[in-house]
Amino acid sequence: MDPNDDLPLLLTPGPLTTSAPTRRAMGRDWGSRDKDFIALTARVRERLAALVGDKEGEFVAVPLQGSGTFIVEATLGTMMPRDGKMLVLVNGAYGKRMAAMLDIMGRSYATVTCAEDEPVTGDLVAAALKADAAITHVAAVHCETTSGILNPLGEIAAAVAAHGKPLLIDAMSALGAIELDAGKVPFLAVMASSNKCLEGVPGIGFTIVKKVDLAETAGNAHSLSLDLHGQWKGFEGNGQWRFTPPTHVLAALDAALDQHEAEGGVAGRFARYANNCRALVDGMRALGFETLLPDALQAPIIVTFHAPADPAYQFARFYDLLHARGFAIYPGKLTAAETFRIGCIGALDRADMTRAVAAVKDTIAEMGVKTCRPAAA
Amino acid sequence: MDPNDDLPLLLTPGPLTTSAPTRRAMGRDWGSRDKDFIALTARVRERLAALVGDKEGEFVAVPLQGSGTFIVEATLGTMMPRDGKMLVLVNGAYGKRMAAMLDIMGRSYATVTCAEDEPVTGDLVAAALKADAAITHVAAVHCETTSGILNPLGEIAAAVAAHGKPLLIDAMSALGAIELDAGKVPFLAVMASSNKCLEGVPGIGFTIVKKVDLAETAGNAHSLSLDLHGQWKGFEGNGQWRFTPPTHVLAALDAALDQHEAEGGVAGRFARYANNCRALVDGMRALGFETLLPDALQAPIIVTFHAPADPAYQFARFYDLLHARGFAIYPGKLTAAETFRIGCIGALDRADMTRAVAAVKDTIAEMGVKTCRPAAA
Repeated sequence: MDPNDDLPLLLTPGPLTTSAPTRRAMGRDWGSRDKDFIALTARVRERLAALVGDKEGEFVAVPLQGSGTFIVEATLGTMMPRDGKMLVLVNGAYGKRMAAMLDIMGRSYATVTCAEDEPVTGDLVAAALKADAAITHVAAVHCETTSGILNPLGEIAAAVAAHGKPLLIDAMSALGAIELDAGKVPFLAVMASSNKCLEGVPGIGFTIVKKVDLAETAGNAHSLSLDLHGQWKGFEGNGQWRFTPPTHVLAALDAALDQHEAEGGVAGRFARYANNCRALVDGMRALGFETLLPDALQAPIIVTFHAPADPAYQFARFYDLLHARGFAIYPGKLTAAETFRIGCIGALDRADMTRAVAAVKDTIAEMGVKTCRPAAA
Repeated sequence: MDPNDDLPLLLTPGPLTTSAPTRRAMGRDWGSRDKDFIALTARVRERLAALVGDKEGEFVAVPLQGSGTFIVEATLGTMMPRDGKMLVLVNGAYGKRMAAMLDIMGRSYATVTCAEDEPVTGDLVAAALKADAAITHVAAVHCETTSGILNPLGEIAAAVAAHGKPLLIDAMSALGAIELDAGKVPFLAVMASSNKCLEGVPGIGFTIVKKVDLAETAGNAHSLSLDLHGQWKGFEGNGQWRFTPPTHVLAALDAALDQHEAEGGVAGRFARYANNCRALVDGMRALGFETLLPDALQAPIIVTFHAPADPAYQFARFYDLLHARGFAIYPGKLTAAETFRIGCIGALDRADMTRAVAAVKDTIAEMGVKTCRPAAA
């Protein structure tokens, strides 16, 4: 029996519900300096680099211990020289967090800030770059988990490239499910983690970065542990991690990448998530719920729904009753409106989403919620 | 069947061989913001804080994503104000690494440096503190994994306390197996990780720190991810981790702590490791090997042996042949002498160590090594 069978499905943006084979890969120990683990590390690094469709061998994957925030901080701190200036594109908590990191590091930065339900457009980026010649680098979020919005990366990257600046992409909640092809979208580095669309367990972040540029970054980092250049040199030197790696988490990621490949890679995973998202949104709308975003802006990763205006609705109770029915959801993260979020990613399919919608229906009936519509805006 | 059964025992200082129940605890997923995981986090934090025998409730445990190096860097960067000056006690790679971190952070520091086979004494520390009134904090390594030496923490702490300075202890390879009682040894903070003497899997470090002092450290850290104060405020706020935690690694640590308790806590674990170490050292000496350290300086964690002077000995072959016989060992890390290291920690007992010694005997016979004695010093 799978130990997950007794647990609610995680309709969350990661950590998420993983497959039994992924968890089973954690059943054995690894010597972190042993040949077998060195081979595992090399294999995972190659498979990660391949995710951006790099045909020229220009890119290298550098995994790092810790959560997504750790790899983002390491990448910003390493890839921009200490006297650089970063333009950070903000329409949610993760863009804001990049600005907060730069602040603590004492690095220069500026922001382009949009509302949480508005995409950051190429025009806005072009205008900001034109207005401030001191900017040396641009940092963007592909899918903002705050709302679930998909930023228009193609036009952002084109605007940044037109100004000759390097682009760093936080693709945490996108890479592996939403196409990001280095041959089509110019970028310097893309950051993601083990426990989002790749469906591994949490504990490792990674950056896929242009080797030639990474080689120039010695001494930039503000931290020993978060030095992406030092981390890379460690791998290049003897194939080992500089500092103790989460061995079991890496083994789980390798197993998860097997399943990603078997599903047809990025295209296959996108298709399943899009199908999940469709079932969820259609089902919830049929109950009267409204999504924060129009479909054109919605990434098939996590969907923000407005809370019902009905006085019988209360998030904590809604959460508990859904949990008892086998589904764990996420609170809203918006500053502007009362919402909740339901994820479409992880080891789950359309039938799971349909069951989730049925559980929502039963839950609101039990709560005595008569209308799922939000308060009029 | 335990998947570890087909694998060599890891006679390494962590990651190490864990028990089947510890690995089985990773068999299920957790929602990182779910009630059950919040309860798991609280339970583990309490059990970690209890390791230093804190009767007054003065201390709090703050876990952090990443390896031991990450928690050491977070602790040094957070617990000392930016204008402080750290005295770092160095007799191996981990003391040196603390100095390297402070260097990258741009913090002031001085060092007391001893040879890798010499303990850092209380007298040396007292003299250094007397000589430099600018020093505000002292950082020491309890057991230096480089050599396996146990530094005399009692006299170091007494010297530091006599000068009224706070002491930060890297107890990575000691905590959980070598007594460190807050009632007897005065200190501000002690750092360790999930995958050493607690026998969890790698992916989490933690600091046990005086709450009243931690509360004063807002704004000290050089990094968002490595801000120990911010991490603590996150836990205090809503019981959740600020940033995605390695959920499975935490569950494994909780299971490992069950076993630690069942074994009789620190005293029980020390007894097993001391027994392991005795069997190893006696057996290896009977074969003619010499330890780097005299028994009085040897922690029962990892033992450094001199390489045989015999021309038939070569580390890589020795490693491979031992590996084929079911034991993974560690290369030496000394700068001064050719050595190798064998760990005594993990889910292993005296019988395992006796089998390891027998495997060494067979291996040197196969290699045609006639004498295991080192070159005369």
